Amino acid sequence: MVNVAILGFGTVGSGVAEVIHKNGQHISERVSNQIALKYILDIRDFPDSVFADKIVHDFSVIERDPTVGVVVETIGGATIALDYTRRALLAGKSVVTSNKELVATHGYELMQLAKEKNVSYLFEASVGGGIPILKPIRTCLAANELSEITGILNGTTNYILTRMIRAGLSFEEALREAQANGYAERNPAADIEGHDACRKICILASLAFGRQISPDQVPTEGITSITLADVEYARSAGMKIKLLGRAIRRPSDGKVCAYVAPHLVRDESPLANVEGVFNAISVVGDAIGDVMFYGQGAGKLPTASAVVADVMDAAKHMCYLKSNCWAAGGPDVVFSQEEIASRWYARVTGGAPVEGARQLSGASDAAAGETAWLTDEALRPAEVRARLAGHEVKNLYRVLD
Amino acid sequence: MVNVAILGFGTVGSGVAEVIHKNGQHISERVSNQIALKYILDIRDFPDSVFADKIVHDFSVIERDPTVGVVVETIGGATIALDYTRRALLAGKSVVTSNKELVATHGYELMQLAKEKNVSYLFEASVGGGIPILKPIRTCLAANELSEITGILNGTTNYILTRMIRAGLSFEEALREAQANGYAERNPAADIEGHDACRKICILASLAFGRQISPDQVPTEGITSITLADVEYARSAGMKIKLLGRAIRRPSDGKVCAYVAPHLVRDESPLANVEGVFNAISVVGDAIGDVMFYGQGAGKLPTASAVVADVMDAAKHMCYLKSNCWAAGGPDVVFSQEEIASRWYARVTGGAPVEGARQLSGASDAAAGETAWLTDEALRPAEVRARLAGHEVKNLYRVLD
Repeated sequence: MVNVAILGFGTVGSGVAEVIHKNGQHISERVSNQIALKYILDIRDFPDSVFADKIVHDFSVIERDPTVGVVVETIGGATIALDYTRRALLAGKSVVTSNKELVATHGYELMQLAKEKNVSYLFEASVGGGIPILKPIRTCLAANELSEITGILNGTTNYILTRMIRAGLSFEEALREAQANGYAERNPAADIEGHDACRKICILASLAFGRQISPDQVPTEGITSITLADVEYARSAGMKIKLLGRAIRRPSDGKVCAYVAPHLVRDESPLANVEGVFNAISVVGDAIGDVMFYGQGAGKLPTASAVVADVMDAAKHMCYLKSNCWAAGGPDVVFSQEEIASRWYARVTGGAPVEGARQLSGASDAAAGETAWLTDEALRPAEVRARLAGHEVKNLYRVLD
Repeated sequence: MVNVAILGFGTVGSGVAEVIHKNGQHISERVSNQIALKYILDIRDFPDSVFADKIVHDFSVIERDPTVGVVVETIGGATIALDYTRRALLAGKSVVTSNKELVATHGYELMQLAKEKNVSYLFEASVGGGIPILKPIRTCLAANELSEITGILNGTTNYILTRMIRAGLSFEEALREAQANGYAERNPAADIEGHDACRKICILASLAFGRQISPDQVPTEGITSITLADVEYARSAGMKIKLLGRAIRRPSDGKVCAYVAPHLVRDESPLANVEGVFNAISVVGDAIGDVMFYGQGAGKLPTASAVVADVMDAAKHMCYLKSNCWAAGGPDVVFSQEEIASRWYARVTGGAPVEGARQLSGASDAAAGETAWLTDEALRPAEVRARLAGHEVKNLYRVLD
């Protein structure tokens, strides 16, 4: 018998309770051990919930109960969640989380603490919601030297871009629709400014390349400046605009460049065909070539399904699982995206034709005097900026080739 | 130190040797144990290979060497491979394989033998080449009740269909091109008649639903009857023809219907956009919804990468790993595809308009008097056959909705 406590009875937390409740027998059979939900910590009461009798308001009840083996942290953020995670690990309990902010900022510290206490800190659900990605990277792809990870890591922004591309909605209209459908928060900044994708690429890069990479080492650009004109210019070039998180390992010294930015992606690319709230993560390894993982990157039950799979892993072993781990970070881990060459899309006003670039055919709502260009060859950022001297640059995005 | 022996120095076997050789240090670090290649069994000698000194011709050398912990079986087929696998397991060695025929036909027996001897029988590479699929199903999706698996499981046939769709090649021309490019064997029957996909859906269905399903329980239709007219009719309906392996679990009694057949797939479906030799496998679970795994389904290094990941798992644990396992099969495991309703595509000659179906606009090379139809509603096979009475049916394919 393994007792589980859930911290935070919000969307994901209540999903975890539901999955354990609904598939409990199946789950316990798989683990060869009874998994029972004992506590749910929340500041609120839920008198009408079937889980009403599990609700507690004081974390120390969980902390001090030696029969609780696994704590599920679905509070979010890096303040209370950090405090409770540390205390749970120190109390000798494994912790499972979907909290990407906490893992991206304090992952190394918390894994070290787990190791010291011989318990697990697992976070499959922190990237790609229910999509299996972290465990496959560490196990199934373990024979590979990985070289690159590129992903559509945020469903909200992918939904907005899909509606701009498919229905011709403006960014503002698509955002309002996403909010109305519950795909975007009332305060959408973390999604549309790219911070959510940034945290996820940090976790992916840390795991794939072996050292902690922190959000402050990852230049991040969101989608707020993308207009319908950009969408149409991209279409005329046979491409779609997607917000990508990327992490690229340099073979010469093993350093990593990670960043988040809108990209133009060729229509034939599997990533171009990932629509709506779906996520997809492409991983490149020396033996495997290119593999891609696709599914719902958020949502109550998909995310809960990944959390519960980690709970099962923790319950099965009840010891430190090395499966997710990386070494300490530092400024020497990363190199600058100024060193990464790519083709570029530029929307500009003024100036002469752009050297070494082809002009894209006009978008119907392009502003007067505005033109768009696609460079013929791969250039570093400094090189493309030099070519664009004399133009006022409205938007400048990389092409994913 | 774990010594490895490879049986069969063909494409996959030599790829395994190469990956162990190239990424040996990285691999040994991950396993916290030295993995060394000791023997390669083949009937031929390879005097110019860097592995020339590992070649042996007598299996009993490997069988009797107590220092060999893991045997990699990449012989293929279910005769010699079966004999050597049994003997290796009986000798207390874990066996890792990419041999889908052997797993699909003797998987249960060999897993039981592995369990008795407390060693592992692992076969991630038998489905989807290098794509991580079996382990994620058993671990990351373990909290789900799975309901359906649908996949493009054979790269050769997907290449042929892609060339018919994209370049307008006939089936015969596309097959010859695939052979010239090394994507199809000189004797392509196992691929184009669907047997390879059949073995893979057997393995997927057995793992996902928990009991052995054998190829003789899986109705299998290949792609040899697909013409360019079918491709064009499908296009006019906004669909693509794909060879799919499917396994569907009936909730009422837990029985499974598995089959392999060409399907019409809507252009917007992620499966429609899987092109060339790539494979993709979609898995549906009650919590996760729909997830898809995508990558190169064959090829020397991708497949070898999956084999080596299993070798690492076996070497790390050196005991019976329950991760891949299922119970015995039997006639009560399956139900008939006659009970599965779907919309249908029919190409026919003669007879009146088909009731409850819309006619598709003509293909340029359609034979005289030939028409094509798409049923409006989902029908069982007997129902669609009744509607088509009086017509000569050339091709009849399900629509994946």
